[in-house]
Amino acid sequence: MKEQILLSHGGGGEEMNALINDIIFKAFDNEILKSANDAAILKFNSLNLAFTTDSFVVTPLFFSGGDIGKIAICGTVNDLAMVGAKPLYLSCSFIIEEGFSIKYFKQILNSMSTTAKEAGVFIVCGDTKVVPKGKCDGIFINTSGVGEIIKPINTANLKAPAKILVSSDIARHGSVIMQARDELGFESQLKSDCKPLNLIVEKILNSGITPLAMRDATRGGISAVLNEWAKFCKIGIKIKESAIKISDEVKGICEILGFEPYDLANEGTFVLAVCEKEAPKCLEILREFDKNANIIGEVIENEENRVILETLYGVERFLEPPKGELLPRIC
Amino acid sequence: MKEQILLSHGGGGEEMNALINDIIFKAFDNEILKSANDAAILKFNSLNLAFTTDSFVVTPLFFSGGDIGKIAICGTVNDLAMVGAKPLYLSCSFIIEEGFSIKYFKQILNSMSTTAKEAGVFIVCGDTKVVPKGKCDGIFINTSGVGEIIKPINTANLKAPAKILVSSDIARHGSVIMQARDELGFESQLKSDCKPLNLIVEKILNSGITPLAMRDATRGGISAVLNEWAKFCKIGIKIKESAIKISDEVKGICEILGFEPYDLANEGTFVLAVCEKEAPKCLEILREFDKNANIIGEVIENEENRVILETLYGVERFLEPPKGELLPRIC
Repeated sequence: MKEQILLSHGGGGEEMNALINDIIFKAFDNEILKSANDAAILKFNSLNLAFTTDSFVVTPLFFSGGDIGKIAICGTVNDLAMVGAKPLYLSCSFIIEEGFSIKYFKQILNSMSTTAKEAGVFIVCGDTKVVPKGKCDGIFINTSGVGEIIKPINTANLKAPAKILVSSDIARHGSVIMQARDELGFESQLKSDCKPLNLIVEKILNSGITPLAMRDATRGGISAVLNEWAKFCKIGIKIKESAIKISDEVKGICEILGFEPYDLANEGTFVLAVCEKEAPKCLEILREFDKNANIIGEVIENEENRVILETLYGVERFLEPPKGELLPRIC
Repeated sequence: MKEQILLSHGGGGEEMNALINDIIFKAFDNEILKSANDAAILKFNSLNLAFTTDSFVVTPLFFSGGDIGKIAICGTVNDLAMVGAKPLYLSCSFIIEEGFSIKYFKQILNSMSTTAKEAGVFIVCGDTKVVPKGKCDGIFINTSGVGEIIKPINTANLKAPAKILVSSDIARHGSVIMQARDELGFESQLKSDCKPLNLIVEKILNSGITPLAMRDATRGGISAVLNEWAKFCKIGIKIKESAIKISDEVKGICEILGFEPYDLANEGTFVLAVCEKEAPKCLEILREFDKNANIIGEVIENEENRVILETLYGVERFLEPPKGELLPRIC
């Protein structure tokens, strides 16, 4: 472990996992934290609640398809949904730079309010701090959230055989942010996928399907999710390039800037694993919300606990976990 | 409302209240939020939970009697205690500046872990973001917390007659931070009062006492708390300067720097109102924890809804609500 915090420590890849596992988990050692799901499960007699937190530092603050306010609601709502909970209550805490425009602040609040209504959650408590100019960058937002478990999802149960599905085409959010920051000057109609996923998840859970694992593919993209599952559950995962939908705009941006779409962040796209029998019904529900949803692969028995990608040319290669300074401040 | 965010919007005084009431509450309009307690009350059938959040941007990060890690645990634990809850679970979210020393980070984590143990709470979920150099200031921490209500405290019930108590001498945290930042170069033994208050509160609640109102006197000090109560509950409050303990070091710092100790932040000191009959027993319990606890005044019928201070010379004056750029980044 190097002696300074690096940008890669926040990137969602291997370095971040090392920081979390070797330093943070060690300091705060407890069983709930170590379960390392998107949200902690809190047991109160017969009631099971999910609890989660995220800070948002995305730049630019406003981007195609969303803004920091929308992403701050979606991020926490989605983390609750991913453990099988119905999101109910959110907190909202602002760190604002002195001199920040109140007009923009109102725009962000409005976006949070609209997204919260869409997801059916209430913002019930908050905090506001102001720091002098140059001590933060516009505005940072933290949201934490509480939800009630509908059906507990425990990734630890994931094993072969099972099918892997993705809820839409991938890498839109990461591409939009890269495009917004890049000075190549190309334009596109591409929008971030940023959206609340709880209503889709609720429909799946209420249909009788029992997902073996669910995770929204944020920092580090679907590659981070699949590699974490493979390592954590000691399984192999095999996915097919041909089954993963990627828009032409995203392909173009990735080609020009040299990124892999599998590593790029999504903010309204999730990966799930279900048993083979439930896969067709699950896909049907996912496609009601997004026609690009697909079955992209399967869990296999594999001693190396790695992710294998079958390319368009039929060649197999490992999909490595994301590493390095992927893209700071993506969310 | 001016068109830019000012430092005073985060100071805990009138400007902050205006921002919260006129802009934030309007955007997120709902009944739970509008109750404006230290924590939101969430009802789940027979279970009542408290939920709260705070972001911490204190500077310097390490100060006499604490650091940003200790304050991040105490702040959220205390907000839960103030609504009559037993704090149980905390989230912890970091925004770290690239290049921040991992040695300091470990020191902060260690301090959080120690304080969490002292308060009997578990840190169960978290998030880590890293931003480039110059885009934040070392480290910012958000903690949110969930607790179970032991006895609900509803400030709206506060009315005359009632006694006002303070749990210790005041203004130590604010003074320590001012001293640490000031270049007058004087030294003192003064330590921040930063500490978890939940065990004291639990003892009071379990003793049969029913506080009519409780609030930890953080940003804006006891003056902010008392003025908020007076305005919110449409009551008068009269306090005696002679009954409020202030250490000589704090008096000295306030005199030199021109501050009122009533306006200065505390991080482990709370104000409470109880009926006259319960005041002596409440004081007895408070003094088991801090000999400087005292009954400092009472709730009176007063049409102006203001706070009256009886000075050492027997003269009465209004204790005005704090206003302006009190002291940025106190917590």
